[in-house]
Amino acid sequence: MSDKFARRMGTVHRSFIREILKVTADPEIISFAGGLPNPELFPVHAMDTASREVFAAVGASALQYSTTEGDLGLRTIIASRYEQRGLQVDPDSILVTTGSQQILDIVAKVFLDRGDKVVIERPGYLGAIQAFSFFEPEFLTVTLESDGPNLVELEKRFEQGAKCFYAVPNFQNPSGVTYSLEKRQAVAELADKYGVLFIEDDPYGELRFLGEDLPSIYSLCHEPGLLCGSFSKIAAPGFRIGWVVAEKEVYDKLVIAKQASDLHTSTVAQAIMRRYLETNDIGSHVGLIKERYGRQRQCMVEMIHQYFPVGVSIIEPEGGMFLWGTLPEGVSSMDVFDTAIKKKVAFVPGRPFYVDGSGENTLRLNFSNSDEQKIEVGIKRLGECLKEFLQ
Amino acid sequence: MSDKFARRMGTVHRSFIREILKVTADPEIISFAGGLPNPELFPVHAMDTASREVFAAVGASALQYSTTEGDLGLRTIIASRYEQRGLQVDPDSILVTTGSQQILDIVAKVFLDRGDKVVIERPGYLGAIQAFSFFEPEFLTVTLESDGPNLVELEKRFEQGAKCFYAVPNFQNPSGVTYSLEKRQAVAELADKYGVLFIEDDPYGELRFLGEDLPSIYSLCHEPGLLCGSFSKIAAPGFRIGWVVAEKEVYDKLVIAKQASDLHTSTVAQAIMRRYLETNDIGSHVGLIKERYGRQRQCMVEMIHQYFPVGVSIIEPEGGMFLWGTLPEGVSSMDVFDTAIKKKVAFVPGRPFYVDGSGENTLRLNFSNSDEQKIEVGIKRLGECLKEFLQ
Repeated sequence: MSDKFARRMGTVHRSFIREILKVTADPEIISFAGGLPNPELFPVHAMDTASREVFAAVGASALQYSTTEGDLGLRTIIASRYEQRGLQVDPDSILVTTGSQQILDIVAKVFLDRGDKVVIERPGYLGAIQAFSFFEPEFLTVTLESDGPNLVELEKRFEQGAKCFYAVPNFQNPSGVTYSLEKRQAVAELADKYGVLFIEDDPYGELRFLGEDLPSIYSLCHEPGLLCGSFSKIAAPGFRIGWVVAEKEVYDKLVIAKQASDLHTSTVAQAIMRRYLETNDIGSHVGLIKERYGRQRQCMVEMIHQYFPVGVSIIEPEGGMFLWGTLPEGVSSMDVFDTAIKKKVAFVPGRPFYVDGSGENTLRLNFSNSDEQKIEVGIKRLGECLKEFLQ
Repeated sequence: MSDKFARRMGTVHRSFIREILKVTADPEIISFAGGLPNPELFPVHAMDTASREVFAAVGASALQYSTTEGDLGLRTIIASRYEQRGLQVDPDSILVTTGSQQILDIVAKVFLDRGDKVVIERPGYLGAIQAFSFFEPEFLTVTLESDGPNLVELEKRFEQGAKCFYAVPNFQNPSGVTYSLEKRQAVAELADKYGVLFIEDDPYGELRFLGEDLPSIYSLCHEPGLLCGSFSKIAAPGFRIGWVVAEKEVYDKLVIAKQASDLHTSTVAQAIMRRYLETNDIGSHVGLIKERYGRQRQCMVEMIHQYFPVGVSIIEPEGGMFLWGTLPEGVSSMDVFDTAIKKKVAFVPGRPFYVDGSGENTLRLNFSNSDEQKIEVGIKRLGECLKEFLQ
């Protein structure tokens, strides 16, 4: 059978993180490896109520086929939430997608020919690398510094003929890095200057614990770009509801691609999410998440300062779900991982986030899905483990 | 911006049927154009109950991320339903997908390189043509006769180096054709002989009103193929839950492709569907659908015999949702459509179902979504319209 597979299947692989999660299934292991939101914060009761109201109010139509673009009421709420944050977005420029992962797939379908140059961050978001890889682009990378991309490198990549730049400017996955205002402005200027399509992925933007909200790069570009959002981190991921904002010409193409991909996003899931948003204050719910994740992040940072040996540097994130660590040159986080599992603590080695095979001495820690007690015990275990390697 | 679109975007188009549905939105129009199941038969109350039970019993875990393969309990139920119909399927060979449309997308991702030869039926299912087109295959067609494909043509296509054959052997969309047992056996033998991957799409198989169930071609092939199913026509389409059965090597590749496409199908939707299946007799529900659609199909056939002019031939389907008509050579169903809209009745002209641009004198009528009264009035209107063209 394998002789029948398409050429592209030689270059795509099962998610490495997925494989790691299998190893960490042991309940005694304290895992900072996953990327899950904390389920204790899911609005289960409110979603139950919303679901009952949907079945009572609209019944059969919530179970029927619906439009590819997505529920207009839901899109209107998404638009008004942008407006509250100072961004004018027409509901008709919002396409509802089956999670924000689907955006990456349909954007690649619409824009990427084999060999097209795509700039991604280094380290970069694994879901994007996977989705784009199916369309066999050439990945160009730009190094993430603590305040955003290295601009000299970025301009060089744009000069090399990049078609698009995919970035997560707020609390990036995996690095936790947030772009400074200066770098946002510089990125927008460069994208405009070189005519590079800017694809802004912003699943974590509302989860800021420290510092001040900064404008999206999407809003700073003069040339039209794409802005991607998701309910996965601010409500719940199990609905698989994301969205993308695009100008008309691109929007129409994305609709064609989405139609071929899954016709439309679950009518039921959209109806429940819409009802939830109509009858609950999601802003105050997001406040709860921020308060909890903020505490967990603070605890993790403090424990790291207390238990990690000298020589490990971290990026202290201002929001989101992840914290990034760098070990001294020559220390392999993959080796550390094997030892850490024996000490019943897990993380994600950083190499899979580098398409160039580097990043061997880096690692990602998730703080959203562990309480402070677990964080303290887990970071202590990991610290002991790191001391062995750094001696 | 258009200079940035991938080459493939030059060959894919918005669904023609979608465009037609806009024209038919006028409530005075009796439309046989859509392809919707009858919403009066959706199990709204049972789904409401299932939903309440899911929120009460599993709560947060129904809202969390889940595995790409899909809920194991749901896959086990799908496997046992196959077993009831005499087909042994391991739950671990079933991949839950976001509607059966997604199967077509991920199958294309896994198997189709640009220029690969794909055999499709003539007329063929539009959703498959759309999904496959994104991967730029060469379509080869095989003419559908009233009992299945023309076998001489099919063998010729296989000799031409076809990689796969996509078919809907039960009550095909658009033609309503059902493959005879002899043709099923012949197709399986040819697929085995030429090593062609057989992709069997069976969304309507359980909706048989007349005749006897026939074995799937999937079960008759010795070489492993793919079998695609869906809850859209037997429960409700708004959940977007389909599935594909595949052998291990292919399964693993499909999982990688699905993961890149949308991570996984909605956890909530899967949980509600599973609970519905655990606590309801879907077999008796399917019985209700068959009874209703069977009556509507019978009414449409009788009204056609009464009101259509001589020279229009139809295929009388044994199940499913569609009935196919052929006008005399030289009569354009597109021209008839324009007149029909003025007479307040709609159908789908057949040409979009032919990748070779033929089929101008064909048309598709949907009978699942109109009651008998509407069918009588609508077919009478269409008959009057056809008489004008055939005089």
